[in-house]
Amino acid sequence: MSDRLRIVEVSPRDGLQSEPRILPVALKLELINRLVAAGLREIEVTAFVRPERLPQLADADELASLLKPSGTARYSALVPNKQGLERAARTGIEHIAFFTAASESFCQKNIGCSIGQSLLRCQALHDQFRQQASGRFRAYISCAFGCPYEGRMDTQRVVDVAVKLAELGSDEIVLADTIGVASPLMTRQLVKSVAEHIPVGQLALHLHDTRGQALANIYSCLDLGIAAVDASVAGLGGCPYAPGATGNLATEDLVYLLEGCGVATGVDLECLIETGRFISEQVQRPNQSRVGIAGVPF
Amino acid sequence: MSDRLRIVEVSPRDGLQSEPRILPVALKLELINRLVAAGLREIEVTAFVRPERLPQLADADELASLLKPSGTARYSALVPNKQGLERAARTGIEHIAFFTAASESFCQKNIGCSIGQSLLRCQALHDQFRQQASGRFRAYISCAFGCPYEGRMDTQRVVDVAVKLAELGSDEIVLADTIGVASPLMTRQLVKSVAEHIPVGQLALHLHDTRGQALANIYSCLDLGIAAVDASVAGLGGCPYAPGATGNLATEDLVYLLEGCGVATGVDLECLIETGRFISEQVQRPNQSRVGIAGVPF
Repeated sequence: MSDRLRIVEVSPRDGLQSEPRILPVALKLELINRLVAAGLREIEVTAFVRPERLPQLADADELASLLKPSGTARYSALVPNKQGLERAARTGIEHIAFFTAASESFCQKNIGCSIGQSLLRCQALHDQFRQQASGRFRAYISCAFGCPYEGRMDTQRVVDVAVKLAELGSDEIVLADTIGVASPLMTRQLVKSVAEHIPVGQLALHLHDTRGQALANIYSCLDLGIAAVDASVAGLGGCPYAPGATGNLATEDLVYLLEGCGVATGVDLECLIETGRFISEQVQRPNQSRVGIAGVPF
Repeated sequence: MSDRLRIVEVSPRDGLQSEPRILPVALKLELINRLVAAGLREIEVTAFVRPERLPQLADADELASLLKPSGTARYSALVPNKQGLERAARTGIEHIAFFTAASESFCQKNIGCSIGQSLLRCQALHDQFRQQASGRFRAYISCAFGCPYEGRMDTQRVVDVAVKLAELGSDEIVLADTIGVASPLMTRQLVKSVAEHIPVGQLALHLHDTRGQALANIYSCLDLGIAAVDASVAGLGGCPYAPGATGNLATEDLVYLLEGCGVATGVDLECLIETGRFISEQVQRPNQSRVGIAGVPF
């Protein structure tokens, strides 16, 4: 059992991007500051995509510019292309994430190109990023377990994409269960298959809790040495382009799992629960974290 | 990994007993018949307690009398005392469950006696049951992981109660996380500790999903050879005497986990999901099963 696992908090980006209510930048900053105060050390704060595509994140430049460097937390942003990278650079965001997919159909619908084209774009983006910044380059593989259009994913396709992302220089490769279909067995097998080609310490999981399996899936990989797990406070978000893909894994529930398994998170769970309640009120939707609702027992 | 694990469906008893809306007996029979049609093989159908204590189950005698023997499913009922056992016998219910607790405070508040007195009662009940029936005798240990009044449970206390329940002749001993506080590590350790004294094939888990950990907890024990896991369709129920104890584990989510891990359940998940939607409508509360909401992906 690993005694250390990074949590990457994605609520300001992956969470808020699919909430119907658009928050003012001041509230987003408050969310981020509260997350840092709760002890989270990595936060994906926004995405530099076209504002008309994601109006919820249209304030990316302003938000990122207003963020003060944190002594403890690393801020990153999702960046799909060179324009996005330039915007990110102007705001001082040091770490970026790129996303591709294991499914051709999803890649076409979500990114507007083939997987192959997307990987070429990733290579160019990565090379440009390395010239201008010293931060970390993270790459998501969407639909690594299943796709709303193509069904269950073939392991070899995921391995192929992961290997290319590693070869082009990604620091971390994130296997994303975009529509929440994975089981523990599937998750463990995929991580092990990819880890035959890439150091397992470069792998992360981004699991949507659509079918309630996310924590069991993560638990099934704890002894494999994966580097990080993504989560979203109060379970904010989902994926607006994947039918039925509601529900990011709630960070509170993840912290409860990890601490209960002896994996130190450095997170103050009570403080995090308060943050989840705060943001649930702000976006006016029910808190999706069971720990957030039930509280810390004793 | 075990390739077989029994599911004990507890929605008609543990589910409905804590729903504010009291269902007519015809609807309860329809629920049970639908559960059998979905492939469930063991169903705890009611409790023979004093009607004023649980008005939701005041129709226990009528319900159990109206139940037709199923060629495939085993029906059981919760029975707290000799009066309950006599009522159960008159209706032809063959299998019974008794409940005690690992926590003195919870035992006093929930059963009205000490754990020691409760075990004496259990012994008497068991002996009387064996004289009149050939069915199975199941014994729950409430608050085996934590108690709303006493906090975290001491493992040795749980082991002691479990050993006594086994010695007095119980066929199966159910470790219940009444308030949903367990982690996978805690669950696995408790099962292993108890299994040092009792065959693991006599142990079952009844986990409330209050903090979203239930599936991970069950997954953590799949390779240990436990006999059964309890669940409740649509996540119906909780425990009316434990503050904050909302949410049984949803059977749909459990079936998804088990089938995904190669454990055959014999359950038709689509049919079960329909049953969960049906009963959620009848009790007029949101479906608590994530699989029930999201559906089978592909």
